[in-house]
Amino acid sequence: MPLAETAEITLEELQLAARNHGLPLEALCYPITPVGLHYLLVHYDVPVVDEATWRLQIGGRVERSLSLSLDDVRARPAVEAAVTLECAGNGRARLTPRPISQPWLSEAVATARWRGTRLAPLLEEVGLAPEAVEIVFSGLDRGIEGGEEQRYRRSLGLHDALMPDVLLAYEMNGRPLPPQHGFPLRLLVPGWYGMASVKWLADIEVVDQPFHGYQMVTSYRFREEEDEEGEPVTRMQPRALLAPPGIPDFFTRERTVPLGRVELEGRAWSGWAPIAGVQVSADGGSTWWDAELVRDLDSRWAWVGWRATWQPRVPGAYELCCRARDEAGNEQPLETRWNLGGYANNGVQRVPVNVV
Amino acid sequence: MPLAETAEITLEELQLAARNHGLPLEALCYPITPVGLHYLLVHYDVPVVDEATWRLQIGGRVERSLSLSLDDVRARPAVEAAVTLECAGNGRARLTPRPISQPWLSEAVATARWRGTRLAPLLEEVGLAPEAVEIVFSGLDRGIEGGEEQRYRRSLGLHDALMPDVLLAYEMNGRPLPPQHGFPLRLLVPGWYGMASVKWLADIEVVDQPFHGYQMVTSYRFREEEDEEGEPVTRMQPRALLAPPGIPDFFTRERTVPLGRVELEGRAWSGWAPIAGVQVSADGGSTWWDAELVRDLDSRWAWVGWRATWQPRVPGAYELCCRARDEAGNEQPLETRWNLGGYANNGVQRVPVNVV
Repeated sequence: MPLAETAEITLEELQLAARNHGLPLEALCYPITPVGLHYLLVHYDVPVVDEATWRLQIGGRVERSLSLSLDDVRARPAVEAAVTLECAGNGRARLTPRPISQPWLSEAVATARWRGTRLAPLLEEVGLAPEAVEIVFSGLDRGIEGGEEQRYRRSLGLHDALMPDVLLAYEMNGRPLPPQHGFPLRLLVPGWYGMASVKWLADIEVVDQPFHGYQMVTSYRFREEEDEEGEPVTRMQPRALLAPPGIPDFFTRERTVPLGRVELEGRAWSGWAPIAGVQVSADGGSTWWDAELVRDLDSRWAWVGWRATWQPRVPGAYELCCRARDEAGNEQPLETRWNLGGYANNGVQRVPVNVV
Repeated sequence: MPLAETAEITLEELQLAARNHGLPLEALCYPITPVGLHYLLVHYDVPVVDEATWRLQIGGRVERSLSLSLDDVRARPAVEAAVTLECAGNGRARLTPRPISQPWLSEAVATARWRGTRLAPLLEEVGLAPEAVEIVFSGLDRGIEGGEEQRYRRSLGLHDALMPDVLLAYEMNGRPLPPQHGFPLRLLVPGWYGMASVKWLADIEVVDQPFHGYQMVTSYRFREEEDEEGEPVTRMQPRALLAPPGIPDFFTRERTVPLGRVELEGRAWSGWAPIAGVQVSADGGSTWWDAELVRDLDSRWAWVGWRATWQPRVPGAYELCCRARDEAGNEQPLETRWNLGGYANNGVQRVPVNVV
C-alpha cells in the first residue's frame, strides 16, 4: 500500500470517503444504529441481486452439495443478535505516514440487529470431508485490486467457521438487508473486523488447503514491510468512542460546551472479550477517571454503553479522551504500533472541546 | 470561505466527508434510492428528537398560531411524491481553487419517495397577515458556523412557500423519516437544492421583513468576492450522471470494460424545467450522441432515467461524459463559472474507462 507523508488527502482517497461512510459520532447514543447511519465500506460496486434467481451454493469438500434459495435459508431455524461491526481500517487516516486507502478517522463502526440462520448446522448438514481445513466465502461484488481481477473472497478456518454465533444474515434491524449491506444474504462473523463478514454471499466452498486469495494474503495482514508475510487481521481490538458533547462548529467539528456539569456518553467494544472498563480523560490522556458501563444490549457481540460526568472548573480548551480494556487484559493504547495497511489503529480518540 | 490551490483535501474536509456521504454512483440504477444510499449532508449534529414531546409551532404574522403534534400533522390530507434532492455544494471539490467545505465530487444527489402534507393549505388555515413577506423555517439542529451560534434556519418568499408541491414530509420510502433525514418532520421544496428542505423542522414563522439569517445571506449565495451581496442559490441546475460501466479498481475507481457493446445508463434532473434530452460522449466531450430518456417515475420533481449504447471499436483508454438540457433551455456546461461557495457546479461528469 502506498504511503503519504502529509496530512493531506488525495483525490482518490476522497472518492472513497464520499461513497463509503462512517457513523456520525453523535449517533453513538443509539444502542442499535439506524440503518443509514451504519458505517459502510464497499470494496467494489454494490451489486444488484435478483432475489428470484439468487442461490447460495455450498460445495467443495463436502458429502453432499447444496443449492439454497433465499426462502430455503429463511425456512431454517432463525436467530437474532445485536452485533457490532468495525472496519479493519478504522483509524487509518490518523497514522503517520498514512497508508493510502479508504481514509477512516475513527467512525467506521456501528451495531445492527441481525437476523439469520447459524452457519454451523448447515455445515454439519452438508458434511465436512475429513480433509477439509477451511471454508471459502465468495461475494457477488467484483473488481480489480492490486492489479488482480477478483470477486471479494475470504476464508475462515474450521474452528472459526463452526463458532455457534457465526450467521448467514438476511435481515438488518427488522428489514431485509439493504443492497449496500449485502442483500440478500451476508456472512456475519461476530467479534471480527468487518472484512470477514462477506456481503452478497453466493458461494461457500469447503477446501482442503489454506485459501491464498488476495483478501487473505495481500490485504488484511499486519506488516511493516511489503515483503513480510505478516499476521492476519482477525478480531477487533478494544476501543471506546465518545459522543462529542455540546455543539459542533460546522467546518472544524470542534465542540463548544457551556461551563457546568457535562454528562459524557459513548460506547466501547472488543472482539477478544467482554469490556471490563472504560476510562475518560479531559486533559488529553494525562489523568483518567472511570466511566460507568451501561449494558443496554443483551449480546456478547455488541458494544456496551458508558457514561461519565465531567465538571470542568474553568473555561478554556480541553481535550477529551476515552479508552477501553477488556476482560482478556487487552487495553486500548494512546498510540498503536504502525502497520503498512493501516489496520486496527485503536489509539485513543481525541475530542477538542472549548468550555465557555 | 477559504480556498485551496492544491488538489489535496484537508483533515477538516475529510472529517466532513467521513460523516456525510454521497450516492455510490452504481446506485443510479434504482429509480428510488434505498435509504442508506441517499446522499446525506448534516450541517451540525443529527438531533435526537422525542416524537412524544415534539411540536410544530406555526406563528408570527398569522391570524391564529398553531401548535401541532406529529399525529396532528399525519391526520391532515397526505400526498406522496418522488423527489430528487441534490446538495447545493455538489461538484465543489472539482473546482480550482477549491472552496473549503464539504468536499463533494459529483455524488451528492438521490431520489426518495416522500409522504407528507402540503404546506400551502396549512398556511391558509393559519391565515397570513397582509404584511407577511416570507416564511422562516427552523430546524432543531444547532451549531456554530462562521463564528455564529445558530439553529439551521432558511426562509422562502410567499410565492415559493405557497407552491402546491411544497411538503411537510414525515415518511421516506414508506417508513418514518430516519433520524438523519429529519425525523420526525422536514420541509421538502421540490426542484430546489437541498438547503431549502429544512430537516428536524420545529418552527414555521411568518415574517414581515426578508429574513437575513446566516444560511440566507452568508451561505448559499453565488459570489466571486467575499464583499459581494451575490444572488441566492435556489433551483437545481440541469445535470446528468452516468452509472460507471464495467468493474472498478478498488482504489482509483477506474473502470474496466471488455471490448464489445456496452449499455450505458444514468439519470438526469433539473429544478427549472423537465429534462428535454441527455447526450453522451466517449471522447471526453468532443463528440456527442443522444441518449434515450426513460421516464420511470411519475413525478415532475424526480430525475429521469436515460440509456445509450456505446460500441467502442478498439481497446484503449476512453473518457465517458454525459450532459443534460431541460425544457427551459438550460444546458449543462463542460465547465461552470467558478464561485466562492462552490455551489451548483454542474460541469459534466468525466468517467475514465479502460476497454480491454
